Amino acid sequence: MTGSILQDKKISPAVQWDGKALYLLDQRKLPLQEEYIKYQSPPKIAEAIADMVVRGAPAIGVSAAYGVVLSAIAHDMDKKKIFADIETLAKSRPTAANLFWALDKMRTHIMAGKDAADLQALAEKIHSDDIANNQKIGDFGAEYINSGSSVLTHCNAGALATGGYGTALGVIKSAWDQGKLNMVYADETRPWLQGSRLTAWELKKHGIDAKILVDGANAWLMQQGRVDWLIVGADRIAANGDAANKIGTYAAAISAGYHKIKVMVAAPTSTIDFTIMQGSDIPIETRKDAELLEFSNSKIAGDIKTWNQVFDVTPASLIDVLVTEKGAIENPNSYKLGLLRSVL
Amino acid sequence: MTGSILQDKKISPAVQWDGKALYLLDQRKLPLQEEYIKYQSPPKIAEAIADMVVRGAPAIGVSAAYGVVLSAIAHDMDKKKIFADIETLAKSRPTAANLFWALDKMRTHIMAGKDAADLQALAEKIHSDDIANNQKIGDFGAEYINSGSSVLTHCNAGALATGGYGTALGVIKSAWDQGKLNMVYADETRPWLQGSRLTAWELKKHGIDAKILVDGANAWLMQQGRVDWLIVGADRIAANGDAANKIGTYAAAISAGYHKIKVMVAAPTSTIDFTIMQGSDIPIETRKDAELLEFSNSKIAGDIKTWNQVFDVTPASLIDVLVTEKGAIENPNSYKLGLLRSVL
Repeated sequence: MTGSILQDKKISPAVQWDGKALYLLDQRKLPLQEEYIKYQSPPKIAEAIADMVVRGAPAIGVSAAYGVVLSAIAHDMDKKKIFADIETLAKSRPTAANLFWALDKMRTHIMAGKDAADLQALAEKIHSDDIANNQKIGDFGAEYINSGSSVLTHCNAGALATGGYGTALGVIKSAWDQGKLNMVYADETRPWLQGSRLTAWELKKHGIDAKILVDGANAWLMQQGRVDWLIVGADRIAANGDAANKIGTYAAAISAGYHKIKVMVAAPTSTIDFTIMQGSDIPIETRKDAELLEFSNSKIAGDIKTWNQVFDVTPASLIDVLVTEKGAIENPNSYKLGLLRSVL
Repeated sequence: MTGSILQDKKISPAVQWDGKALYLLDQRKLPLQEEYIKYQSPPKIAEAIADMVVRGAPAIGVSAAYGVVLSAIAHDMDKKKIFADIETLAKSRPTAANLFWALDKMRTHIMAGKDAADLQALAEKIHSDDIANNQKIGDFGAEYINSGSSVLTHCNAGALATGGYGTALGVIKSAWDQGKLNMVYADETRPWLQGSRLTAWELKKHGIDAKILVDGANAWLMQQGRVDWLIVGADRIAANGDAANKIGTYAAAISAGYHKIKVMVAAPTSTIDFTIMQGSDIPIETRKDAELLEFSNSKIAGDIKTWNQVFDVTPASLIDVLVTEKGAIENPNSYKLGLLRSVL
């Protein structure tokens, strides 16, 4: 399988492509079961994204790109039908920038008259570039970590969330491999438990010493002097450096600021949405009540309303370093991101 | 049953006493089942406290007091045996001040040569005083709430956590009954879900409009301008006003400070431990990994270590008002708590 060549060798790739079908590791079932689902229908891929079979902004982008390839094959390059599938894919989730970025790249290619083989080559390049970019992000980010550090992460920005390797977890893996880390703390990340289900699984496969904690405990962990860096990924970054990420990231960044602990956001430039000037303009997804009221289809709470926005926005003022595949930007702002844009 | 007379009439009392036995509403099973367990053995009451059949600092104190009465009856006032039971009760949980406060009161009474009937009268007074104090706290606290406010609470500091009515939820119930509240937000409160299981249940029984959210979302909720007050209870308050409460309270208080949202801590004076000068000296309980790794005895995460301290300490500097049954103290500190002590 193409995707597997460059991936983190310790993790079975979450997104795989064999030229005829897309295979997604069902992240709803991890870590208890490692099951792949085979996809050949673009609307079914949109469902897989909406239902979080695959999640993580870069992984969603890669999956959607393969969805367009499958659409092109199925519809024999009928543009109207392919564009309808692109529309369906674009509606799967609202926040991740990489979804729209990948679909735009595919659409532009189609408009330029490329054929299905060209589209497949582009999707594979989006995929392999993402992995290569993750590894660069890992190296650039790890330079900031001093030996003997302990770090905290939120959600899962690892191999599972990307083409492979990871953004925030890429930095952590690189720093660990360089012998710099004492301990990795991972927020369990309610409501979907990406931390205790996915990040814990990845860290263990990588042999990294880790502990999970409830999200509300991270400020107290910092107060005990146990954290040197908060390192997170991003789902969409505005042109001024404000970064949307999994709900709870903003709280963690505020606590980090209060304790003078540094905050690193690690993401490929495909996560930056230069059409959005500031974080308050980023669309934030609200998901269903059941995510809080049920567990494994069993009721845990009474019949009550929820407030379930699943992303939040960390203002650039709380971010010490933004690490992309092009390098690190300290104290990100509109001017510095403008310079970055000029080299993309 | 004695305990039920003065209680919040909308909630079946969590702690009940009929002169011969203690009945505890099993809070591990709420809200799906409302089941009482009957206790006549003091060591079994200690287990009930350790296992969280009953929880909440004031409710633990009341339950332990009845445990001493049962010990006095069972051991026919044999002081050595009663003191052994007191020792067992004192070891059930380390953080809640009210446990030690209630046991000290009972021990002093025994040392003074009181009989079992006197001890029962004292335990009943500890219980009924707690309810009366809750109602005073509710009234004093509600004075701070402006009409049209929305408030956020963490954990459960309601009728279930006390002799009856509640401390933080007492303030919220009083403010609601005065028509001052638009919306009550409740953190779900991992790992034990006191918010979504217990607070949601109490608020619904009281007809209060409420929404639950994941703990990590509370900073983002504040950022949206949806919260006017953070109102929480406490498990132990140091002589300088630093307040230990359920893990996640400190994070919420930091976020409240960041957003210039006021923080109220509501607790009876029996929660103040004047022998402890500052929060860093408060013993903090660590509970078992399974609280994070399992749900309803089913595995949710892989085999990984946890960091599961279940209380944290909010420094007095982050507390705008401490409300006790004696009145409210703004910007609490050692001097002001010293004045309070002089009137106890």
